[in-house]
Amino acid sequence: MTSYIRRLHDQIKTKRTPALVGLDPRIDQLPASIVKSAESRSSTEAEVVATAFEEFCCRIVDVVAPLVPAVKPQSAFFEEWGPPGTDALQRVIHYARRAGLLVICDAKRGDIGSTAEAYARGYIAGDDVNAAPWGADALTVNPYLGRDTLDPFIKVAHERGGGIYVLVRTSNPGAGSFQDRITDELPHFQYVARVVEELSSSLCGDDYYGCVGAVVGATYPAELAELRQVMPHVPLLVPGYGSQGGTAADVATAFDADGLGALVNNSRGINFAFRQEPYRAQFSPDDWELAVAAATKKMIADLTFGV
Amino acid sequence: MTSYIRRLHDQIKTKRTPALVGLDPRIDQLPASIVKSAESRSSTEAEVVATAFEEFCCRIVDVVAPLVPAVKPQSAFFEEWGPPGTDALQRVIHYARRAGLLVICDAKRGDIGSTAEAYARGYIAGDDVNAAPWGADALTVNPYLGRDTLDPFIKVAHERGGGIYVLVRTSNPGAGSFQDRITDELPHFQYVARVVEELSSSLCGDDYYGCVGAVVGATYPAELAELRQVMPHVPLLVPGYGSQGGTAADVATAFDADGLGALVNNSRGINFAFRQEPYRAQFSPDDWELAVAAATKKMIADLTFGV
Repeated sequence: MTSYIRRLHDQIKTKRTPALVGLDPRIDQLPASIVKSAESRSSTEAEVVATAFEEFCCRIVDVVAPLVPAVKPQSAFFEEWGPPGTDALQRVIHYARRAGLLVICDAKRGDIGSTAEAYARGYIAGDDVNAAPWGADALTVNPYLGRDTLDPFIKVAHERGGGIYVLVRTSNPGAGSFQDRITDELPHFQYVARVVEELSSSLCGDDYYGCVGAVVGATYPAELAELRQVMPHVPLLVPGYGSQGGTAADVATAFDADGLGALVNNSRGINFAFRQEPYRAQFSPDDWELAVAAATKKMIADLTFGV
Repeated sequence: MTSYIRRLHDQIKTKRTPALVGLDPRIDQLPASIVKSAESRSSTEAEVVATAFEEFCCRIVDVVAPLVPAVKPQSAFFEEWGPPGTDALQRVIHYARRAGLLVICDAKRGDIGSTAEAYARGYIAGDDVNAAPWGADALTVNPYLGRDTLDPFIKVAHERGGGIYVLVRTSNPGAGSFQDRITDELPHFQYVARVVEELSSSLCGDDYYGCVGAVVGATYPAELAELRQVMPHVPLLVPGYGSQGGTAADVATAFDADGLGALVNNSRGINFAFRQEPYRAQFSPDDWELAVAAATKKMIADLTFGV
């Protein structure tokens, strides 16, 4: 079994980029050809949507698998449609792994004790995709319930060569309403960060980084720079680049001297590039995959941190 | 459309109890007869487990539907088994609603903006069970991502006659590691509580309580009493009674003068009563439903708060 961080860094070095492609399917944004094809093969609305999501995401995987180390499906968009949606999520994850990509399931789970362990066992497959039904390499995790509730996730991830990313500083406009409250002279998220560093550094083994990562938004660059210092052994997942406003300069501090230790995510800017300039002028909606490829390559060129 | 709180209080008054039965199926705890029957009807391990979970939970529903106002399936135990598990969760929720019970889906979801809205639209059906594929009346929600991330959940709940329960003070031993951090002279969970009160009181309409509830553990009775005062317009969901150590005296302060405004949950102590004394001595494993009924009635008799 190979550790998550080793597999991740192998991928980052091979693809020579820390670009992470989010899979955020939304029915009203999909190319019309995908929806039409799904309508001809399914009956209920939920089945049409799920069929369309699966085809859309798998075709994105086909485009980006040679280009980037990992994809991050957003579980909520699949769950919204009930069982047909979650069936599609499972198939998309397995398809991406067969294509050689690492998969971070963005489901932000969190619960206590044996309940947290059930989530971990269900989602974090780690090195062997068949070790968990949902088959992900790593899972995003919410820390609100307490430090003890992270342990079951860490245990399963560590045992299976998987990883977790703990929400520390999210990218939304109101992130600070709770995360910035001052606790014992530190903003709350800074305290959470110190706990995450302690947990990850204790599990590094022969690697410099541990299996406990952190989500830190690109939309708060000063905090990102500070958090990289506070969590030297924690792999970062940086959302908020692109559509949410974060720039390459904003995320530069997330990386170590070797250009490793972080993934930068872009979802909408790649998934729906064909609807956005400059790609909308260059590609017809039927050529949406060319727009995905162009937007991915532009992001890769934008993130030049030496890997 | 009838508001969540009105439907909840109608149920509490009809059944004359605030007892909430959690549905926490675990394969190694189920009655052997249920597992054996599932094995004869299913092929893969996940399908056997899911079939057994569905039969177990639906038979608990049959026993408790005349006795209590609501059930609370724990999503994690179903998700652990992949799509067969989540299919079973959906069927259990719909079965419980057809039996006249309110259903609180305990999935502790949380995300930003349109992603939070996708979770809300998928889970919170409110008054019309068909308004969301998972079909729940209410959903538990994690506040870590910020106040703005609660809004999409509240909007969908309010529109559909559904509810949410925001995690404020959880029942686990390590709950305090983050929730008790002092922020501006208040423990963090007390600050979250004030936000939840503000959100719920603004949406009460003609009701005394709003659709924004809070999860407050019975295992911290002093905090529970204080939080009831801080959040007068917030319906409470109180876990931690029974197996986790909370007593009737511990939860008495959760109720208003009319005995309303709170639900007290018991999962393991009812689901697996046939494995525990005094029921183990009284009932054979094949009579596990009689143990469920006896444990539910004992809880109802224990929680005498005047409804």
